[in-house]
Amino acid sequence: MTNFVVCIVGKSNSGKTTLIEKLIHELNLKGYKVGTIKHDVHGFDIDKEGKDSWRHKNAGATLTIISSPSKIAVIKDSDHDAQIDELVARYVNEVDIILVEGFKKSNKPKIEVYRKELSSDILCNGDDNLIAIATDSSHDINIPQFNINDAKGLAKFLEDQYLSKKGNPFISLEVNGIIVSMKPFLQTMLINSITGIISALEGCSQPHSIAIKINNGCLKKF
Amino acid sequence: MTNFVVCIVGKSNSGKTTLIEKLIHELNLKGYKVGTIKHDVHGFDIDKEGKDSWRHKNAGATLTIISSPSKIAVIKDSDHDAQIDELVARYVNEVDIILVEGFKKSNKPKIEVYRKELSSDILCNGDDNLIAIATDSSHDINIPQFNINDAKGLAKFLEDQYLSKKGNPFISLEVNGIIVSMKPFLQTMLINSITGIISALEGCSQPHSIAIKINNGCLKKF
Repeated sequence: MTNFVVCIVGKSNSGKTTLIEKLIHELNLKGYKVGTIKHDVHGFDIDKEGKDSWRHKNAGATLTIISSPSKIAVIKDSDHDAQIDELVARYVNEVDIILVEGFKKSNKPKIEVYRKELSSDILCNGDDNLIAIATDSSHDINIPQFNINDAKGLAKFLEDQYLSKKGNPFISLEVNGIIVSMKPFLQTMLINSITGIISALEGCSQPHSIAIKINNGCLKKF
Repeated sequence: MTNFVVCIVGKSNSGKTTLIEKLIHELNLKGYKVGTIKHDVHGFDIDKEGKDSWRHKNAGATLTIISSPSKIAVIKDSDHDAQIDELVARYVNEVDIILVEGFKKSNKPKIEVYRKELSSDILCNGDDNLIAIATDSSHDINIPQFNINDAKGLAKFLEDQYLSKKGNPFISLEVNGIIVSMKPFLQTMLINSITGIISALEGCSQPHSIAIKINNGCLKKF
């Protein structure tokens, strides 16, 4: 997947958000655009009561968009706990790396934030997706370890290991509201077919990124 | 376009937000899912200072997603004042009608909210896109007029005139981050080609809605 996704996991109060703030800063300094995803199992309350957009949503809109020249916000209802791939496919464009806070059960690469006063062992011991530990301790495990405050070192590690590499071609497909998973050969076939069609259009000869939405003319709940 | 879009326009304090709240309620009662778009030319401030997602965005993330089992929010930077078609193409799924507050210069169907104490004439006089007026007065103009509080009547009008009709097939295409406009014959060709390919996939024989994103494997700023 072109957007490199890494989950920052760890116990409550281990410093995940603080590390993410520092990583964003360091990655921005290196010229990368960073997106973030925060998993909030308890639901959240985001808009300000009484604002027009809050009034729209509160009156029963299933989706409310606020658009300004410098910022766009979308607030929408969901009927399930969306997974990372779905969130990335639907909402992410134009970033180089996505830092995810939480989703510790996902199969994405993970960095664990460890603070010895909070637990005696790392959470992700034995998890093949663990790529680094940011810690105030040291661990007898064959995984790169960084000081818990060393965001600069971690950002360089991410850049060297993941961001300098050319990504693989990536396709996401949603049909009738459901994400369709495809075997690699089918992904390649679809990428090539559709890229071939689109690159024949005027002004689209080198399509690095393509987003297509089709509604086949029926007005109904998908 | 399958998602029927209507702009609610009018002077400041004419009651646009209040009418939208009432329309959402009436349309929900009729079983329609409603999305809304609010245009905010001055920018806006949406998240709550100190929350994790606020900290991500404030640290320099260009995009932050907060995901819970019941609600998803996306906050992202924009480098331009996005138009309605772009917002709909990128962010809207699974709604029957989109009520837009503002964007009075757009070429979408419009309902004007008129309050006689605020102006001597309607804003959209002569605008071919004006489909109805919600007013506390009466106007010598050949456009359907509703009492400013008659959200029920307006909702029925929208349903009868626009929501009961089968929409036309619709395609949006974004290549390298730019929305590509296409002549109708080209739209039809692309809809048919891509629908044909996708409907050959297992479980996708009747694709009412299709969303595809492709990244051709280059890690770069689009």
